Amino acid sequence: MIINKNKLFNLSKVILIGMIIQLLITATAAAHGKKAYKYENGELVRPTGYREWIYVGTPVTPNDMNNGKAAFPEHHNVYIDPRSWKEWKKTGKFRDGTIIMKELVSNGSKAGVSGKGYFQGEFVGLEATIKSKSEFPDEPGNWAYFSFSSKNHKTLSKKAKPFPASSCNSCHAASAADDFVFTQYYPVLSAGKAKGKKATGGYDSDLNNKYVEPK
Amino acid sequence: MIINKNKLFNLSKVILIGMIIQLLITATAAAHGKKAYKYENGELVRPTGYREWIYVGTPVTPNDMNNGKAAFPEHHNVYIDPRSWKEWKKTGKFRDGTIIMKELVSNGSKAGVSGKGYFQGEFVGLEATIKSKSEFPDEPGNWAYFSFSSKNHKTLSKKAKPFPASSCNSCHAASAADDFVFTQYYPVLSAGKAKGKKATGGYDSDLNNKYVEPK
Repeated sequence: MIINKNKLFNLSKVILIGMIIQLLITATAAAHGKKAYKYENGELVRPTGYREWIYVGTPVTPNDMNNGKAAFPEHHNVYIDPRSWKEWKKTGKFRDGTIIMKELVSNGSKAGVSGKGYFQGEFVGLEATIKSKSEFPDEPGNWAYFSFSSKNHKTLSKKAKPFPASSCNSCHAASAADDFVFTQYYPVLSAGKAKGKKATGGYDSDLNNKYVEPK
Repeated sequence: MIINKNKLFNLSKVILIGMIIQLLITATAAAHGKKAYKYENGELVRPTGYREWIYVGTPVTPNDMNNGKAAFPEHHNVYIDPRSWKEWKKTGKFRDGTIIMKELVSNGSKAGVSGKGYFQGEFVGLEATIKSKSEFPDEPGNWAYFSFSSKNHKTLSKKAKPFPASSCNSCHAASAADDFVFTQYYPVLSAGKAKGKKATGGYDSDLNNKYVEPK
């Protein structure tokens, strides 16, 4: 095959321009993707795609263990956005712009072939917390809290206003282990703090826990 | 600035060759990355990075709800590899090459500010299941099951041999909702089955559940 030098030169120019455009698109996407949420006119737009974020843990405080009136009767599946996870793995800090999602799941079956216990049922709600100095300068730790859940657990709102600090933040301030986040109940965060790639699981043969077999 | 046409031509050649090399690397990586695990000489190499896969659900069947002798006393955080999740979202099938990880977490605190319940403690074990026609032609559904956990829950093995079918598969065959997988306890899988991007959470305002508020 004979290659025409001038044609190849023109083709190369096209490729070069293409590469520059692609670089610009990537840079723009990176800038826009900095925060995994949209907060506008004092409301948080309901986030999407969080089931593909990083899962950190699930507490369950069911009604039947709390005299039929649990404050949070559901399983709470908790996720952190990937960029903030990357920062947590590296520095052990929640970066400005962190969003943590809490997906509420009903208590489903109480018995399976594996035994009696609490099994996850259906999705019944969605909550979020955000750390942002520019958006929540007056909130303790700059964390604000949101709920998209309807009272009957059947629908989600499209937007949510932040709760007053007294509703959520006071409790988080008093009892959460790390910067208003209950990392003591989220093993992925507590074990992964500033651990780099080891935070992602499976790298250590030694589990390095204080576990004592229950009698 | 004056650009020398011949120099630019040479530069372009270098860029072209670079792009071809990059394409080859990407294609090779795609081929190797087809399966998210390494099974060699009859053993599964302990997977890594699964905490960045897709979380699907957590059952908990604690000792104190099972006369002190639960078969699976820990919280079980369950993940599916990203490629198989992509296929599940699209088709609602577990593709050949699916790997599902089960990370065992001890029962930590039984009371928090949110109430009495079960909170996750420390990582105490790791198990896996794989669906592969070529590797497990004789296993029911081509699923094989593995454990890396030591008896004292302090260490993980580097490799694991598959369990005999009777140890795990018989129970999965009898009671699991979908192709030997207990999707009935994994809301991310059950709600996300063949739902495309809606499977990733937050897209639907109507939660479309059968939830009835507990009395």
